[in-house]
Amino acid sequence: MRANTYAIVGAGALGGFYGAMLHRAGRAVHFLLHSDFDHVRRAGLRVDSKLHGDLSIAQPNIYSRPQDMPRCDVVLVALKSTANDLFPAILPHLVADAGAVLVMQNGLGIDEQAAAVVGPDRVVGGLAFLCSNKLGPGHIAHLDYGQVRLGEYSADGNPRGITPRLQSIAADFRESAVAVELEADLLAARWKKLVWNVPYNGLTVVLDATTDQLMANPSTRDLCEALMREVLAGAAACGRHIDESFVQQMLDHTRKMVPYKPSMKLDYDSRRAIEVEAIYGNPLRASRAAGTDLPAIAALYEQLKVLDARNRA
Amino acid sequence: MRANTYAIVGAGALGGFYGAMLHRAGRAVHFLLHSDFDHVRRAGLRVDSKLHGDLSIAQPNIYSRPQDMPRCDVVLVALKSTANDLFPAILPHLVADAGAVLVMQNGLGIDEQAAAVVGPDRVVGGLAFLCSNKLGPGHIAHLDYGQVRLGEYSADGNPRGITPRLQSIAADFRESAVAVELEADLLAARWKKLVWNVPYNGLTVVLDATTDQLMANPSTRDLCEALMREVLAGAAACGRHIDESFVQQMLDHTRKMVPYKPSMKLDYDSRRAIEVEAIYGNPLRASRAAGTDLPAIAALYEQLKVLDARNRA
Repeated sequence: MRANTYAIVGAGALGGFYGAMLHRAGRAVHFLLHSDFDHVRRAGLRVDSKLHGDLSIAQPNIYSRPQDMPRCDVVLVALKSTANDLFPAILPHLVADAGAVLVMQNGLGIDEQAAAVVGPDRVVGGLAFLCSNKLGPGHIAHLDYGQVRLGEYSADGNPRGITPRLQSIAADFRESAVAVELEADLLAARWKKLVWNVPYNGLTVVLDATTDQLMANPSTRDLCEALMREVLAGAAACGRHIDESFVQQMLDHTRKMVPYKPSMKLDYDSRRAIEVEAIYGNPLRASRAAGTDLPAIAALYEQLKVLDARNRA
Repeated sequence: MRANTYAIVGAGALGGFYGAMLHRAGRAVHFLLHSDFDHVRRAGLRVDSKLHGDLSIAQPNIYSRPQDMPRCDVVLVALKSTANDLFPAILPHLVADAGAVLVMQNGLGIDEQAAAVVGPDRVVGGLAFLCSNKLGPGHIAHLDYGQVRLGEYSADGNPRGITPRLQSIAADFRESAVAVELEADLLAARWKKLVWNVPYNGLTVVLDATTDQLMANPSTRDLCEALMREVLAGAAACGRHIDESFVQQMLDHTRKMVPYKPSMKLDYDSRRAIEVEAIYGNPLRASRAAGTDLPAIAALYEQLKVLDARNRA
């Protein structure tokens, strides 16, 4: 099995880090850049990792137009899901005939967006457990973690199990010193990640707080728990069981974390669009279609939509 | 039937207005003041009403200590419910043997607080539909409305109907040019008022918005409606039916209102305690005790508690 070639769409905190890790391990990596293109062409891509040291690439393969890029085996989508309307303009140019689009985003409904453009059999879902920030143009600071979970997208909702393609991508990541777990059931993995993302992303925005503040106050701690339980109810409605104990596990984990601003809070504070549909709207609609309302999540969703609109006005 | 004498506890936007109206009609009115005592002793009580003209009282009967006041037939409680812990220090000194405490506050559980101090048979509940502001010490501006609804408190939850006592108080108000409706079922009236208070008080605080902004945005309009429907569910759990059409009625009414900041928003902006237990905590607990959770209201409640605590820290 030959090593895969990689197209990285978006060289921000996530794409810059994984792209640099794959590049360091010898993989052919091509970056599609937008706003940072000129800066990176001049100064290179700078990635400082607390765990892995200097991962900078002096002369990365960078492109400003999808049409100019070579077709790759794996197209790693590292955009914010708020930019997924760009998929039709990007993905068809980048993915090789037998290649895959790896959607490394939070929430639900994002794999579907890629599938609608490149076909359902060419989509792999990725979940990144990563603490990484973009400090400026072409400058990434990797702070902690980095594990990746990968699973096959399923158009009919039935788990597609572990495929050779997943194992092939996993091998590249592992050889790049990125820990990987393979998920037989991508949808279950996506719901499970929402157990954390739903309470902490939204509440840090609405209440202008960090995770430690939410956990220190009994009111917001209870609200986080209530929101987590609604995520479990939504997952169950979609046929995915998440064990009750996972709620306590996430609460305990967050209590022990250093004070943290989730990506939605960072986006909001920088007046960027927040991923409100992927993390809230799509799970709500999936659950409602299965006959289950999630009222506390719905309330948070409506609050976030109005704050997001006002924030960018 | 002789006219009742009145003790007004708190001469703010509400107590100042109704006290001045009763005084103008010739009722004996005694005001218990706290922070404004010295100012009002010097300058009198100033009440400007757009509808009723100048209601000022040059030398009102004012007191700074409950012990110094005459016992009155009606003790009109016009404090914020956040100060109801003062009831034991105040009410026993003010209410005549055959008198009544008229709790003119929003929310639930406030009549119970008075009943615990003066006994359940001496409590009348009042609901004010009033647009009035306190502009400064001893200075009230009455802007619009003013109708009052009165009902008998019931310790066992069964409606107590229209009593001679209610009619007697109503006569005083009506002779003072205050419109009154009598409620056979106080608890039903309190739940009904919550249909408006629950969405608009809390959301204007959490989202830093006015009522017109909440109604102009489809997200928050939907959220207001969802919160209203949960109030109906809570009322139903407590055996009080509110017709579905009332939700649309309240939405339409609010859409037509001038841009408005509910009392909770005004309190919050002035860094005063907000009435989070009376308007949210007590209804939630009453509903939960009857087996019905109200998840969107619960989420708003937890958000408000943390914002209130931080706001006053």
